[in-house]
Amino acid sequence: MKFGVLIFAEAEELDFAGPWEMLTMWSAVADGPETCLIVAEHVDPVICAKGLSINPHVSFEDCPPLDYLLVPGGRGTRREVENPALLSFVAAQARRCKAVLSVCTGSFVLHAAGLLSGKRATTHWGSLDRLRALGDVEVVEDRFVRDGDIWCAGGVSAGTDMMLAFIASVSGDAAAGEVQLQSEYYPSTIIYGGIDSHVGAPGYARDD
Amino acid sequence: MKFGVLIFAEAEELDFAGPWEMLTMWSAVADGPETCLIVAEHVDPVICAKGLSINPHVSFEDCPPLDYLLVPGGRGTRREVENPALLSFVAAQARRCKAVLSVCTGSFVLHAAGLLSGKRATTHWGSLDRLRALGDVEVVEDRFVRDGDIWCAGGVSAGTDMMLAFIASVSGDAAAGEVQLQSEYYPSTIIYGGIDSHVGAPGYARDD
Repeated sequence: MKFGVLIFAEAEELDFAGPWEMLTMWSAVADGPETCLIVAEHVDPVICAKGLSINPHVSFEDCPPLDYLLVPGGRGTRREVENPALLSFVAAQARRCKAVLSVCTGSFVLHAAGLLSGKRATTHWGSLDRLRALGDVEVVEDRFVRDGDIWCAGGVSAGTDMMLAFIASVSGDAAAGEVQLQSEYYPSTIIYGGIDSHVGAPGYARDD
Repeated sequence: MKFGVLIFAEAEELDFAGPWEMLTMWSAVADGPETCLIVAEHVDPVICAKGLSINPHVSFEDCPPLDYLLVPGGRGTRREVENPALLSFVAAQARRCKAVLSVCTGSFVLHAAGLLSGKRATTHWGSLDRLRALGDVEVVEDRFVRDGDIWCAGGVSAGTDMMLAFIASVSGDAAAGEVQLQSEYYPSTIIYGGIDSHVGAPGYARDD
């Protein structure tokens, strides 16, 4: 099993680093993918949205066929939705992938690659209206949503939750539990300043 | 204000990437540090515990005096607790830092640098007994713990929660709330397989 995590200039760090941790922990402790790759158009260093500099493992050209592909969000998506090389890569890999996943505004990349029309999807709360405006996506305000072989998470940190649910769907509850235990993912439920101060927070956060 | 995030070979990815996201979001949206740096012994690529390759921003030699320093954990700490160059760097920076923070087994690095004796501290659940065995640390099983100017988080994902609490302590509840909103940090509370299957889970997770 081969799992690719796409990055590009100004990808948001936690969008891919959270899923990367869960994914690679799955490989380490619970029979996850043998191969986990950071994939980018070229193997030169990629500077993320908040300044982290990453060396991709493999370029589009050298990337093997993937079983799963995750696309993060971040400011860079505004450029990448018009990058034919990236969209071709995503579309071509998707044709043989068992599932394609996005985090945050990565859903706009999936849409631009032709993968989201007619699907239920989500994105960062600040971009929900922009996703609705595309006109052919059923936008939901959930932490993450699955529609067949397409998974979409909300903003930034939501990818971590999506990845655990994805692991449960592929390998079962016990495997996801083992990953959760090893990554000590028992997050705090504190809402700083109280939820009423979180103007714009998505539906799932306000309902809790 | 200058905030340094230390990395080293086999640092665990989410240990530093979670805090990095919160830290840099704080800078972006709520008057956080003007300068956020990934610091390592040398500026050559650093291969993390799960294979992510990072280019540090600055070496120990070129690192400016920091106001805050965060030390992640990971397998690499077993080596770094015996690395005089790294321990000297941490100890020297700590003398002028307003606070020093660790995530996961990063607390063993703080201890080896002479910063943890007589303090309340924590670590990854799998290393709590090893931290107790040091003999001069009051080990607590909390998601994170502050003792004066030393902050310690539990394993891997716990650093994200610690960083939000740290931001609240420095910049107030509203600033932490703004970072939480922008990073959409409203994590799921699902326990995969049920808590009874999480043998070894730390006290705070079992009590919830």
